[in-house]
Amino acid sequence: MARILIGIMGPGETATPAEVETAYRLGYTLAEQGWVVLTGGRNVGVMAAACQGAKAAGGLTVGILPGDRGDRLSTAVDIPIFTDLGNARNNVNVLSSRVVIACGMGAGTASEVALALKAGRPVVLMQVTPAVRDFFQTLTTNSIPLAETVAIALQEVRNFLDV
Amino acid sequence: MARILIGIMGPGETATPAEVETAYRLGYTLAEQGWVVLTGGRNVGVMAAACQGAKAAGGLTVGILPGDRGDRLSTAVDIPIFTDLGNARNNVNVLSSRVVIACGMGAGTASEVALALKAGRPVVLMQVTPAVRDFFQTLTTNSIPLAETVAIALQEVRNFLDV
Amino acid sequence: MARILIGIMGPGETATPAEVETAYRLGYTLAEQGWVVLTGGRNVGVMAAACQGAKAAGGLTVGILPGDRGDRLSTAVDIPIFTDLGNARNNVNVLSSRVVIACGMGAGTASEVALALKAGRPVVLMQVTPAVRDFFQTLTTNSIPLAETVAIALQEVRNFLDV
Amino acid sequence: MARILIGIMGPGETATPAEVETAYRLGYTLAEQGWVVLTGGRNVGVMAAACQGAKAAGGLTVGILPGDRGDRLSTAVDIPIFTDLGNARNNVNVLSSRVVIACGMGAGTASEVALALKAGRPVVLMQVTPAVRDFFQTLTTNSIPLAETVAIALQEVRNFLDV
Repeated sequence: MARILIGIMGPGETATPAEVETAYRLGYTLAEQGWVVLTGGRNVGVMAAACQGAKAAGGLTVGILPGDRGDRLSTAVDIPIFTDLGNARNNVNVLSSRVVIACGMGAGTASEVALALKAGRPVVLMQVTPAVRDFFQTLTTNSIPLAETVAIALQEVRNFLDV
Repeated sequence: MARILIGIMGPGETATPAEVETAYRLGYTLAEQGWVVLTGGRNVGVMAAACQGAKAAGGLTVGILPGDRGDRLSTAVDIPIFTDLGNARNNVNVLSSRVVIACGMGAGTASEVALALKAGRPVVLMQVTPAVRDFFQTLTTNSIPLAETVAIALQEVRNFLDV
Repeated sequence: MARILIGIMGPGETATPAEVETAYRLGYTLAEQGWVVLTGGRNVGVMAAACQGAKAAGGLTVGILPGDRGDRLSTAVDIPIFTDLGNARNNVNVLSSRVVIACGMGAGTASEVALALKAGRPVVLMQVTPAVRDFFQTLTTNSIPLAETVAIALQEVRNFLDV
Repeated sequence: MARILIGIMGPGETATPAEVETAYRLGYTLAEQGWVVLTGGRNVGVMAAACQGAKAAGGLTVGILPGDRGDRLSTAVDIPIFTDLGNARNNVNVLSSRVVIACGMGAGTASEVALALKAGRPVVLMQVTPAVRDFFQTLTTNSIPLAETVAIALQEVRNFLDV
């Protein structure tokens, strides 16, 4: 029976300390629920922190990599999927996630949020300004919550999963 | 010798009359320069109008389709590329464009603008509010012009191409 | 630390009883080694049987799906990856596998073997004629073993993994 | 109205002189019919020769590149499509071709022939042994002609196009 995968997306090299810390606690909290944490898999920023948090809670982690081998793979990824799709892999990230949580914002993360909305996947935003939320809200009739804490983000994910 | 391809992206089913008219005139104007017009190829909205405008000027058009065959193909597309990649084809659209012009905004178009910025492709915006431009401008250090007329958009493309 | 993923590829709707039985025992045997079994994820043929075998041995299974949602997903897949790439997902299958085992042959499986050889991934063949092996052997300087039993296939995988 | 695109696939770095010469004459002959020649776009082997032949006849050429920019692009490609999909772009090659002609054989070409058969695209083989044709013929119920001359290949394409 398929496990529930929750995606955590966010900046890589340019992630701020607050984004990294939030991503770690998000990964930890989601893994505690028994959910699988899915990220872009690289050993940097939000991706790496979310996987590290999930592993600290004894969880399972999936990384969807842009390249064809493991040279930039986070050591906290259990299941590396090598796509060699470059940034086209961003669409695989969101399609494979039951809910997409964006923690911080950059060009890659923005593409993932937009692709999630296009595909009808629920999105939760963290570590962004209300103006960013307002922009994405114009692209969809579904509600896009801006969660100020990890506890609120967890509740939003529960709402979307109806659990 | 490779021709210069300029991408025109924008809403499909939800395009407004102003977006459709602007896309038509954009396609016409770019084709007059001898450039190839590239779109998402479907027979609706900005994609179809841009190709129709380019054909009216005697130009050449390329459509990058999300599916594997021609059932929703615009009749104004000369060169249909069937990707069967779904929305992952949005990355092919922007990588194949020397400059990306977004005419109007929706979830798919937002993903294309974000992917273009991620890949370092120049972007020109039309038919969006200053707030939308301001959001995308936070994602890159390159300048993202908001062109109020087709003539200004043409000048911005010329600047990016350095011609 | 990344788990070891082994791919099992083969016919879907057209799989023979012998191919299905072999795929089941392959999945069981690989899972017993602690390896993760990766397949194309659909609920039919070699894909489904390999995942069912792996689950019977208490293993973990990954399915790389051609579509964007779970309507044709095998119930024996733990980690579904929805690519919406159509058959372009075949390249993701092989790139994500440390070793690719083809059990039976069809057009899709042939593309996976060829893509694996192109990417330098080791391939083990089962349930094919020596003529099929001979054809693929012309495409690479690496050795492509044709394993007559699951035990031999396991040994070939061990050789490739150097364990 | 969409032009007719015919794909010419074959070895890159490892192409033989006979394959290169045949590819050049194929490209020339197909372009004479008014058809667009589609290849993998790199500046080597069958891809480059087919495009050069097509240009010598005044034709139009499309190259579907594995990378994200033009550093290995054949100068005989008019319309470069940059996919950044690696070898997953092979599926785009065959889906965008009304008929796929394979001229010579290697791992990449074999994946293209198999993907074409999977998608139901007609295939013509050149510069391969009857054993290679016999292998691919086992993967489909459609006929796969082995054309010994460019004139015969042209006739086979005409038959498939029903013109």
